[in-house]
Amino acid sequence: MTDILKVGVAGLGTVGASLVRILEAKANVLANRCGRPIKVVAVSARSRSKDRGVNLDGLTWFEDPVELAKFDGIDVFVELIGGEDGPAEVSVRTALETGKHVVTANKALLAKHAVVLSRLAEDKGVSLNYEAAAAGGIPIIKTMRESLAGNDVSRVYGIMNGTCNYILTRMEREGLSFAECLADAQRLGYAEADPTFDIEGFDTAHKLALLTSLAFGCEVNADAIYVEGITSITTADIRAADELGYRIKLLGVAQRTDTGIEQRVHPTMVPKSSAIARIDGVLNAVAVDGDAVGEVVLVGPGAGGDATASSVISDIVDIARNVSMPVFSQSATTLETYVPARMRAHEGGYYIRLAVLDVAGTFATIARCMADKGISLESIVQRGPHSRNDKDGVSDPAAPRSVILITHETTELAVREALDAIAAENVTSGKPQMLRIENLK
Amino acid sequence: MTDILKVGVAGLGTVGASLVRILEAKANVLANRCGRPIKVVAVSARSRSKDRGVNLDGLTWFEDPVELAKFDGIDVFVELIGGEDGPAEVSVRTALETGKHVVTANKALLAKHAVVLSRLAEDKGVSLNYEAAAAGGIPIIKTMRESLAGNDVSRVYGIMNGTCNYILTRMEREGLSFAECLADAQRLGYAEADPTFDIEGFDTAHKLALLTSLAFGCEVNADAIYVEGITSITTADIRAADELGYRIKLLGVAQRTDTGIEQRVHPTMVPKSSAIARIDGVLNAVAVDGDAVGEVVLVGPGAGGDATASSVISDIVDIARNVSMPVFSQSATTLETYVPARMRAHEGGYYIRLAVLDVAGTFATIARCMADKGISLESIVQRGPHSRNDKDGVSDPAAPRSVILITHETTELAVREALDAIAAENVTSGKPQMLRIENLK
Repeated sequence: MTDILKVGVAGLGTVGASLVRILEAKANVLANRCGRPIKVVAVSARSRSKDRGVNLDGLTWFEDPVELAKFDGIDVFVELIGGEDGPAEVSVRTALETGKHVVTANKALLAKHAVVLSRLAEDKGVSLNYEAAAAGGIPIIKTMRESLAGNDVSRVYGIMNGTCNYILTRMEREGLSFAECLADAQRLGYAEADPTFDIEGFDTAHKLALLTSLAFGCEVNADAIYVEGITSITTADIRAADELGYRIKLLGVAQRTDTGIEQRVHPTMVPKSSAIARIDGVLNAVAVDGDAVGEVVLVGPGAGGDATASSVISDIVDIARNVSMPVFSQSATTLETYVPARMRAHEGGYYIRLAVLDVAGTFATIARCMADKGISLESIVQRGPHSRNDKDGVSDPAAPRSVILITHETTELAVREALDAIAAENVTSGKPQMLRIENLK
Repeated sequence: MTDILKVGVAGLGTVGASLVRILEAKANVLANRCGRPIKVVAVSARSRSKDRGVNLDGLTWFEDPVELAKFDGIDVFVELIGGEDGPAEVSVRTALETGKHVVTANKALLAKHAVVLSRLAEDKGVSLNYEAAAAGGIPIIKTMRESLAGNDVSRVYGIMNGTCNYILTRMEREGLSFAECLADAQRLGYAEADPTFDIEGFDTAHKLALLTSLAFGCEVNADAIYVEGITSITTADIRAADELGYRIKLLGVAQRTDTGIEQRVHPTMVPKSSAIARIDGVLNAVAVDGDAVGEVVLVGPGAGGDATASSVISDIVDIARNVSMPVFSQSATTLETYVPARMRAHEGGYYIRLAVLDVAGTFATIARCMADKGISLESIVQRGPHSRNDKDGVSDPAAPRSVILITHETTELAVREALDAIAAENVTSGKPQMLRIENLK
């Protein structure tokens, strides 16, 4: 096979420009690795005149990515447009329908349409590759789909959003507030002007949905994911976690349980000694627990033009090497319907922070409410009146005091009922903070 | 493709028994993932009567692995015999010559014969897969060969021997001597009765040789690797490293330099803040620096029956899925001859521990010898007479004192010449300790 593999790239943002540049710069080495040349022959983007630092001379230009997807002159359609619907969805579907291989970095698209698109790819006998759609430069898709094929996976979890990890790392290291760290992240280009998608956990949820399907052989179902973002995390939580031997990370976790498969994204207390606790800044990390291999952890950049392009290229290289892989590790027709575990049945330890006005009088009430629900406590910490609080660093003798509880393993339902019972006693003020503790080595 | 993929397994030790058991237990899920069944149909081992905890009924038995390799009834020959020559080499060659795919976990075999065997596999149009030959359950071969295909690699390094890492971790955590930790490792089955191969660094070197070829597109050349084991490491070194902000790890490092490619295995000072410093016990980790992706780190079990079998199965699954991959990421005929960098040209910082009798009188001499070779010092630490020494924990005023130097970046040649010059001054006793510092994030 020495035919040129002809590539069309839709979307020339940061990743698209990196991709075109690297494929051009490394044409010889890639041809050597694939046994055939890879060549970008056509592109599509909104503005033709914008300077992207790459040479587009000689490439066929399409205003409309759907026209590029239909173009007979390409073998592979690379979708880097973004968005769960609209041009991205139409063009990917069109490319598959017209018999082209598709490579996409679009987690939102796949989180919503993976079932339909994977069946379509299979019907047409073409590849639908998406290494860049989860954890950027980290080869987690290939690892799960191929390297761990001999394993039953019990859990996959990870830090898959660099924006959140950057904010949490800065809060921990420098004692800054969430708002300050978010503003810095925006200034440095680590967060969007509208950061909702990242900080509310939706980006992590989209990525997790793909890993869940690979791990458990079920259809992608992002809507069923329990999602909590990091906006409620205060420096008081960060400090308390530190004192108790934990760090707070936004994790996506998919886990097999007796009642179904948990998919959850939430700020999580992870033991300081765990590998995942040490992933700082914009780095990502994904861990897979397999019954044969044990735990494998992959660490690397979760974003960035060149790092993401590296994963897109690996997908294109697979196609050039005639590697054809079931999209979710097995035929799309054999994927099982996703059976969610109920979040209220989630089992684990919990961190609870309550604001109380009269500490002495309320300890007994709190302890009784927890005991009534069968919850035993591993530790209770009361922050004294001279503790800094997270608003202004000044202590106020009349201000609420924090009481922090760490529970032994219990259920989400028990904790929620206990917190409702405590609220009904009128001994606390404001909304309690509740963070799940993940049992990690 | 619904034909059964028929597998022959040569060698029924820990890994072989795990492999046969897992392939049997997961027959259905693997068939689903591969689109065809995988079935062990024949085996070869020394003793037919030994109880291995797996059911061998109905399998064709061969006394001689070479006969199994010739057997027309198999599509894939799995070599788990071990050894760089002898039956392993003859049977692998025979299997390839007779048109069978080969999967092997044998790093020694490949370190010696990879050039010949990869060409033979290519001539015959069959796969030669070896995921289990480097870092056990960690999918580093697939990652380098496929996931990072779009990268120019500047360095690959890692902890690839669990025995050594276990010993160094115990020495650090418990202040025990090398000999005590080795004895424990032997008692726990982490080290062989004759541990030479592990503790002298040869096992790491074999694995590194394979990664070097994948990283730099050159022929495998294990003989050119600079190898130092961990037998010279004392608790004094471990303690000094700790005080200076480092840990000592046995690393294999392959790195592109101006004069060629360095391949080296040696105990290494790594900054405590680096990811690799936190890999403890029998865990392995491999890091790859790619120009597009940045650094990717993979962590997982480097040994063990099931973990190693997990990698062997991924190789078999690739064959079942008709994935055909160049053995070293590009055609064996295009691999370049390995051009070694000279170890004396190695650039980096150094840790040096000298035993001196009269500290006051010798500082100036030592400093002058270093300065004469253009070596500047980052720090000098003199251990006082009340420091514990690593032999017995009792101080002796007449005993030699340790002087520990950390150099700024310099060359191996300069350090060796400076140490020769110091030795000629007769102000030190015994052999100086010299450890390289690896520049890691």
